[in-house]
Amino acid sequence: MSDMTWFTGLSTVAAVIGIAIGVLGPAFAMGRAISSALEAMARQPEAEKSIMRTLFIGLAMIESLAIYVLVIILIVLFRNPLLEYIVKG
Amino acid sequence: MSDMTWFTGLSTVAAVIGIAIGVLGPAFAMGRAISSALEAMARQPEAEKSIMRTLFIGLAMIESLAIYVLVIILIVLFRNPLLEYIVKG
Amino acid sequence: MSDMTWFTGLSTVAAVIGIAIGVLGPAFAMGRAISSALEAMARQPEAEKSIMRTLFIGLAMIESLAIYVLVIILIVLFRNPLLEYIVKG
Amino acid sequence: MSDMTWFTGLSTVAAVIGIAIGVLGPAFAMGRAISSALEAMARQPEAEKSIMRTLFIGLAMIESLAIYVLVIILIVLFRNPLLEYIVKG
Amino acid sequence: MSDMTWFTGLSTVAAVIGIAIGVLGPAFAMGRAISSALEAMARQPEAEKSIMRTLFIGLAMIESLAIYVLVIILIVLFRNPLLEYIVKG
Amino acid sequence: MSDMTWFTGLSTVAAVIGIAIGVLGPAFAMGRAISSALEAMARQPEAEKSIMRTLFIGLAMIESLAIYVLVIILIVLFRNPLLEYIVKG
Amino acid sequence: MSDMTWFTGLSTVAAVIGIAIGVLGPAFAMGRAISSALEAMARQPEAEKSIMRTLFIGLAMIESLAIYVLVIILIVLFRNPLLEYIVKG
Amino acid sequence: MSDMTWFTGLSTVAAVIGIAIGVLGPAFAMGRAISSALEAMARQPEAEKSIMRTLFIGLAMIESLAIYVLVIILIVLFRNPLLEYIVKG
Amino acid sequence: MSDMTWFTGLSTVAAVIGIAIGVLGPAFAMGRAISSALEAMARQPEAEKSIMRTLFIGLAMIESLAIYVLVIILIVLFRNPLLEYIVKG
Amino acid sequence: MSDMTWFTGLSTVAAVIGIAIGVLGPAFAMGRAISSALEAMARQPEAEKSIMRTLFIGLAMIESLAIYVLVIILIVLFRNPLLEYIVKG
Amino acid sequence: MSDMTWFTGLSTVAAVIGIAIGVLGPAFAMGRAISSALEAMARQPEAEKSIMRTLFIGLAMIESLAIYVLVIILIVLFRNPLLEYIVKG
Amino acid sequence: MSDMTWFTGLSTVAAVIGIAIGVLGPAFAMGRAISSALEAMARQPEAEKSIMRTLFIGLAMIESLAIYVLVIILIVLFRNPLLEYIVKG
Amino acid sequence: MSDMTWFTGLSTVAAVIGIAIGVLGPAFAMGRAISSALEAMARQPEAEKSIMRTLFIGLAMIESLAIYVLVIILIVLFRNPLLEYIVKG
Amino acid sequence: MSDMTWFTGLSTVAAVIGIAIGVLGPAFAMGRAISSALEAMARQPEAEKSIMRTLFIGLAMIESLAIYVLVIILIVLFRNPLLEYIVKG
Repeated sequence: MSDMTWFTGLSTVAAVIGIAIGVLGPAFAMGRAISSALEAMARQPEAEKSIMRTLFIGLAMIESLAIYVLVIILIVLFRNPLLEYIVKG
Repeated sequence: MSDMTWFTGLSTVAAVIGIAIGVLGPAFAMGRAISSALEAMARQPEAEKSIMRTLFIGLAMIESLAIYVLVIILIVLFRNPLLEYIVKG
Repeated sequence: MSDMTWFTGLSTVAAVIGIAIGVLGPAFAMGRAISSALEAMARQPEAEKSIMRTLFIGLAMIESLAIYVLVIILIVLFRNPLLEYIVKG
Repeated sequence: MSDMTWFTGLSTVAAVIGIAIGVLGPAFAMGRAISSALEAMARQPEAEKSIMRTLFIGLAMIESLAIYVLVIILIVLFRNPLLEYIVKG
Repeated sequence: MSDMTWFTGLSTVAAVIGIAIGVLGPAFAMGRAISSALEAMARQPEAEKSIMRTLFIGLAMIESLAIYVLVIILIVLFRNPLLEYIVKG
Repeated sequence: MSDMTWFTGLSTVAAVIGIAIGVLGPAFAMGRAISSALEAMARQPEAEKSIMRTLFIGLAMIESLAIYVLVIILIVLFRNPLLEYIVKG
Repeated sequence: MSDMTWFTGLSTVAAVIGIAIGVLGPAFAMGRAISSALEAMARQPEAEKSIMRTLFIGLAMIESLAIYVLVIILIVLFRNPLLEYIVKG
Repeated sequence: MSDMTWFTGLSTVAAVIGIAIGVLGPAFAMGRAISSALEAMARQPEAEKSIMRTLFIGLAMIESLAIYVLVIILIVLFRNPLLEYIVKG
Repeated sequence: MSDMTWFTGLSTVAAVIGIAIGVLGPAFAMGRAISSALEAMARQPEAEKSIMRTLFIGLAMIESLAIYVLVIILIVLFRNPLLEYIVKG
Repeated sequence: MSDMTWFTGLSTVAAVIGIAIGVLGPAFAMGRAISSALEAMARQPEAEKSIMRTLFIGLAMIESLAIYVLVIILIVLFRNPLLEYIVKG
Repeated sequence: MSDMTWFTGLSTVAAVIGIAIGVLGPAFAMGRAISSALEAMARQPEAEKSIMRTLFIGLAMIESLAIYVLVIILIVLFRNPLLEYIVKG
Repeated sequence: MSDMTWFTGLSTVAAVIGIAIGVLGPAFAMGRAISSALEAMARQPEAEKSIMRTLFIGLAMIESLAIYVLVIILIVLFRNPLLEYIVKG
Repeated sequence: MSDMTWFTGLSTVAAVIGIAIGVLGPAFAMGRAISSALEAMARQPEAEKSIMRTLFIGLAMIESLAIYVLVIILIVLFRNPLLEYIVKG
Repeated sequence: MSDMTWFTGLSTVAAVIGIAIGVLGPAFAMGRAISSALEAMARQPEAEKSIMRTLFIGLAMIESLAIYVLVIILIVLFRNPLLEYIVKG
């Protein structure tokens, strides 16, 4: 098996498993935040505005974590900076 | 075993296991959000509208995480950018 | 062992294990959503309509996750796009 | 060991382990749904009808997940589309 | 070691481990359903009939999951459709 | 090591581990059911009869799951239908 | 290493590990049942008789599960029906 | 390494690990039973007698499970019936 | 590596790991029993005597489980009955 | 396989798995913090300002942990200080 | 690698890992007992004496378990009775 | 593979996995502390000052733990004191 | 690889992993004890003295467990009694 | 691979993994202690002083555990006493 096959095979597997594990945490966190927002809304319907604002900021913060994972994986799949060492070497 | 077989076999296995693990988190999160929405609705039936709106935004955010996984896996199955290195090499 | 046997054997095992793991999350989520719907119904019998509507939307969203898994596995079993690389190569 | 033995042995093991894992999720979900239905019934005996209807719809949705697993496994045991590649090859 | 020994040995082990894991889920679900039925009965003794009916339907649904596992395992032990490929091959 | 030794050794180990894992689920379920029955009895002593009846039906259903495991293991130990393929082959 | 040593060594290890795992479930179940019986007794001291009767039936049912494990292990240690195939073969 | 060394080494390790795992379940169960007995006693000091009686019966039942493990391990260490097959063979 | 070294090395490791795992269960059980005794004492200070008596009996029963582990390990370290088979053989 | 391939392959896999695991903790923590903020807001709507301020400080602290992981991974992918030892050596 | 190195290396590793695992259980148990003692003290300050006495007896019992682990490990490190078999052999 | 590659590869993987695991604990702890601070603030809005002070001290203490991990990893990546032994040797 | 390298390498790894695992238990226990002390103090501020005394005794007992681990590890790192067998041998 | 590389590589990996695992326990414990302190402060604002004092003592005790891990790891990285045996040998 050539070096390139070994490298690309491992990268592909890591990318798929990585995104699968990486969305677990944000998904749980979002579920928890939305769940709390709904409960808060049911208890204080008149505070809907400030609840929605807090929820949106929170979801954006959590989404940013999922984006970190996605960015690293897209870098690995499309523009891996370590790749040039193998192509050169 | 040729390089190509090794690479495609691993990609296939990773894609299937990846999507199976990747929907775990979103599924739990959705279950939690829907469950809270139903409880909120039972406690404040008159706030149905704002509950539904919040729920839909939340489900869309969680679904986006599942879509990330799906997109990475479809890229790996149909248009893996790393594949050209093996075909060339 | 020929390349083809190795590839098809692994694909088959991955498909079976993948669907088995992949329905875990949606199953738990559905169980939770239905359970909450029943409790909500017991607490607010007159809100049955909006509870049922929310439940159906929720179940459809969760089912969509299970469908993602099923689709990937059917693609792998019946029309694996990576297969042509081996048949050609 | 011939290719065919290897392939059929792995398929058989995967089928048995797959169905065993695959019913875990639906079983838990059903247990939860039925448990909630019974509690709801004890709290609101006069809402029995709508509880039963919701329960049946829920159990059917969960059962569908178990059927997905069963169908994939029966396909693998009786009509594996990947089998023709080995028989031909 | 001949092919046949390898195949039958693996099938036997898979069948035993499969049934052992496969009854875990239904057992938990049954325990939960029966437990809820007893609690419901203690809270609403006059609703015994509809509780028993719901419980029986629920237990039958859960039992069906255990039966799926049992059927797949009996097929593997007594009439494995994949066996003819080895006997022929 | 002869084929027969390998086969019987594996079957024996699988049988012992299988029964050990297989009684876990039914044991938990029974513990839960009996525990609920005792609590129900303490809350509604006059409903003892219908509680006992429900408990017995429930224990029988759970016991049936343990019996499935026991039957598969006894088949494997005393009358394994796959054994004739090795003796013949 | 002769076949016989391999077979008896594995059987011995399996027997010890099997009984150790096999009593876990019944032990938890018994602990739960006895614990509930004591709580029930503290809440309804005058129902001691029917509580004791239910507890004894429950403990007997759970004990039967532990006995299944013990019987299989004693069969394996003292009268393994699969042993004759090796002695003959 | 001679057969005998291999057999006795494995038996010794299995015996030690087996007793260590085997007391886990009974220990938890005892802890739970005693804990409930103490709580019951604090709630109904005048029911001390029947609580103590139930507790003793329960502890005896749980102890019996630990004794099963101990007996199997002592058989393996001092009088393993499978040993004669190796000494003879 | 001589047989004796292999045997004594494994025995030593098993003894240390065995005692470490074996005290886990009794430790948790003791913690639970003592914790319940203290809570019971805080709720019913005048029942101190019967609480202490029950606690002591309970701790003795749990300690007996830890003693089983200790005894097996001391037998293995100082007087392993299986040792004579190697010394002779 | 050349040294460089081995090194870059491992680094890539580690980077992807590392970011996937590394966002788990911050995601849970954020979910918990946002959830508490929403509940606090529902209980004390007039304290919105100080709640938002505390939440923002908290999210920034948690985000800093995710940034640590991201920074280490970007260093490994783009400017690994250990790389010069291999290029030189 | 000489026999002695193998034996001492394994003993050392086992001793360190053993003490690390062996204090887990007693630590949890102590934490639980002390925690309950403090809560009991807060609820019944005038029962401080009997609480302290029970706590000390309990801590001594739990400490004894940790001492068992420590003693076995010190025996293994300083006076392993199995060592003479290797030195002689 | 040269020694240097082996050493740097392992160090890189350890650094990435280490930081990923190492922020788990601090992240959970921070989430818990912030969550409690928000709840405390909602219950006692007038105690905001002392709550904020305690929270800041707590976050600093927890952050210090994450810094320990970061420092060890930066030492390993940039200035590993053990490196000179290999360069020399 | 010489014997000495193997022995010292394993000892070093065991020491580091051992202390890391060994402080887990005491840390949890301390967290629990301190947490209970703070809650007790909030409920009974006037019992501060006896709470502090009990807490200090408890922390000392738990710390002693961590010291056991530390002592064993320092013995292994600085004065391993088993070392002389290798130096001599 | 030379002995020195093997030794330093393993030490480095152990140090990084060790500190990552070793801060888990203290982090959880700190989170719990701070969380309880904040709740206690919200319930008894006038007891702030004694709460802060207890919290500081507790955090110092927990921090000491993290310091133990850090010290062992710094010894291993900078001044490993076992290193001289290899340099000499």
